[in-house]
Amino acid sequence: MELADRTAGWVLAETQAGRLKQGDYLDACLDRIAAREPEVKAWVCLDAEAARTAAGASAGLLAGMPLGVKDVFDTLDWPTSYGSPLYAGHRPGQDAAAVALARAAGCVLPGKTVTTEFAYFHPGPTANPHNTDHTPGGSSSGSAAAVGAGMVPFALGTQTAGSVIRPAAFCGVVGYKPTFGTIATFGVKQFAWSLDTVGVFARDLADAALLAEVLSGLLLRPSGETGSPRIGLYKAALWSSPSEAMAVTLEKVAAVAEAAGAQVTEVILPDVCASLFEDQKLIMAYEGARSLAHERRGKREALSTPLLELTDAGARVDPNDYLQARARSRQARAALAALFQDVDVLLTPSAPGAAPRGLAATGDPAFNRAWTLLGQPCVTLPAGRDPSGLPLGVQLVGGFDDDARLLAAAAWLERVLAA
Amino acid sequence: MELADRTAGWVLAETQAGRLKQGDYLDACLDRIAAREPEVKAWVCLDAEAARTAAGASAGLLAGMPLGVKDVFDTLDWPTSYGSPLYAGHRPGQDAAAVALARAAGCVLPGKTVTTEFAYFHPGPTANPHNTDHTPGGSSSGSAAAVGAGMVPFALGTQTAGSVIRPAAFCGVVGYKPTFGTIATFGVKQFAWSLDTVGVFARDLADAALLAEVLSGLLLRPSGETGSPRIGLYKAALWSSPSEAMAVTLEKVAAVAEAAGAQVTEVILPDVCASLFEDQKLIMAYEGARSLAHERRGKREALSTPLLELTDAGARVDPNDYLQARARSRQARAALAALFQDVDVLLTPSAPGAAPRGLAATGDPAFNRAWTLLGQPCVTLPAGRDPSGLPLGVQLVGGFDDDARLLAAAAWLERVLAA
Repeated sequence: MELADRTAGWVLAETQAGRLKQGDYLDACLDRIAAREPEVKAWVCLDAEAARTAAGASAGLLAGMPLGVKDVFDTLDWPTSYGSPLYAGHRPGQDAAAVALARAAGCVLPGKTVTTEFAYFHPGPTANPHNTDHTPGGSSSGSAAAVGAGMVPFALGTQTAGSVIRPAAFCGVVGYKPTFGTIATFGVKQFAWSLDTVGVFARDLADAALLAEVLSGLLLRPSGETGSPRIGLYKAALWSSPSEAMAVTLEKVAAVAEAAGAQVTEVILPDVCASLFEDQKLIMAYEGARSLAHERRGKREALSTPLLELTDAGARVDPNDYLQARARSRQARAALAALFQDVDVLLTPSAPGAAPRGLAATGDPAFNRAWTLLGQPCVTLPAGRDPSGLPLGVQLVGGFDDDARLLAAAAWLERVLAA
Repeated sequence: MELADRTAGWVLAETQAGRLKQGDYLDACLDRIAAREPEVKAWVCLDAEAARTAAGASAGLLAGMPLGVKDVFDTLDWPTSYGSPLYAGHRPGQDAAAVALARAAGCVLPGKTVTTEFAYFHPGPTANPHNTDHTPGGSSSGSAAAVGAGMVPFALGTQTAGSVIRPAAFCGVVGYKPTFGTIATFGVKQFAWSLDTVGVFARDLADAALLAEVLSGLLLRPSGETGSPRIGLYKAALWSSPSEAMAVTLEKVAAVAEAAGAQVTEVILPDVCASLFEDQKLIMAYEGARSLAHERRGKREALSTPLLELTDAGARVDPNDYLQARARSRQARAALAALFQDVDVLLTPSAPGAAPRGLAATGDPAFNRAWTLLGQPCVTLPAGRDPSGLPLGVQLVGGFDDDARLLAAAAWLERVLAA
């Protein structure tokens, strides 16, 4: 395996054991960026020398580790343009909290990664590292593609609908969206305050948990000694249909897990969940119209048509419909809490299938909207390929604030799938 | 009554009826600022001519209305220093969402109002407009004092512990902290993402509801035709003791309400609420340590001792204690929902008493922490004076996302108290 494709955990262990020279891994990542960036286009700005300089001065648990940061996170030293021409060259003057926490642990930023416009659907130039004719997914396009291409071991993203889990699955990496409110959102361009969640990308579950620990302060790294989980298999017919390859992969993963000792039960969601998909869209539009009030006021010509359409619709939403959607999501959260008495995690598709062809759209977050609305923690794990050779991901969903249990189950499943 | 002491509602009606010339009210407010600012010190920056120019170009429901904006809200045209020398002259490059929404409705900013350091306890220079030897409360010190002094009809603030309700009560004005997640927080300096709530100050309930409608998009203005509310009297012995004047005032308000037709029942809170006070402090410290990661990293010498102590303690909190505090707050929220089946609002002190003497501290948020943690909407109404002549406030607390009912009850009580 090439050095750039190693995990942060492996690199840290080898460095500590004296078998790897400090800086060699960063060099390998920067070489990989130089080699693949022309076709993958994961970065909106980039400076290899700045990363080497920062690494020389870094200290901490993750000293010198390169980190991809989606360009909706404010940064002191890099321009932050939120994927919008309105903010070309914008200098916010401070680091987002998550960036500051990562830097305090020693991470260095080779630059910023491509985001769709304000983390909504209008895409940037990024291509899928596994097949550059296909989308990497969005909105955290560059972060997912950079990890998928071996440019960085991990990266920061955000999810309002499906912007961590979907691109991670499309790019063949691990994605982790923690419980809502786990990682500080300060300095992240807001889209919908009830939904926006900071998440991480990595090449394995342990790296994702390690970075999330640094950001959240929680104890998230699985000990590796947990037993086989109770899995609720949810085929997600309520919101969308998986592709045939996805459906087959889901069944296969469930069978492998059961064979390895997991208790697998097919579950259906309580009736109160029926409207979650539409409720998420309504809340996202209502709040987006208000979070982006500054841009919608007199700068409309610089916004994409899809963003204008969504936020204009959001401004017209009947506020009582918004309150009712909020009330239903509270009821559904309570109902889900009861369901998670019987299972540790749900197993469900991360996306309808593999990354669609073309770079004009970022794919469908149908399998993510409800979990984001409910605030449940989610992990996507790579789980094979579709017939065209593109990665498929399966999603594990945990109970609210029960992230450690979710990550333990995900680590277990990752081991089982690797065996 | 002097023109500057009128409400926005009165001014809008008189202007529409042709009895008041557009601009006269703004001039009266600017004159009041000029007269009282030397002793009240509500503003961190100020430009009367800029406000007049903006008013000339303004349109909308609140065209030309001056608005006080706490200096933790980002502004495009004004420096934003968050009450910290670290950010002297800082230009964030965009308006906070709430500021943009207020401007879109026609509001104009004469400047920015004083905040404590990052909306925590280290005070600015602002004095109480009713007695300048006393604190105006905090952290929204300047917004509360500016409304209390007749400088502006309404103002924006934020509450993480008690930073809207307490200063509003101390300054003799109406304060309204909506349900958590009602008003966009984008562009507000984050302290604790589970707690930070945008709220408003005004001279009567109708003005507070009017401004909150503009900011939230919800239908909040009471029709004036609601019947007398069911009031749960909560004397708040669980967390702190009110002063004698406060206790007497609370009983008097309850008696007046009952005489006017309200159903008043003394309530006790469910046992699960016992730890809310300590839980709010723990969550605020834990999250503050992370939200302020950028400032705590290498800029410690510019932070006040109380802020360093709080955030250092927050960084050391056992993460499982944090998760348990979050879990208890979810349980308490559910228990409160049951209590609000039987009452429309709780009636409880806004603060232990009137504004304490001295400007070195901003008073005690003991009567606010729990409601902020639970996300319940709160209103404080002026309700008489203590023996020294300083204003006292009583607080109404509503059910989660039931802000319209709370405001209707508050409007009813305001009428009853005025009669």
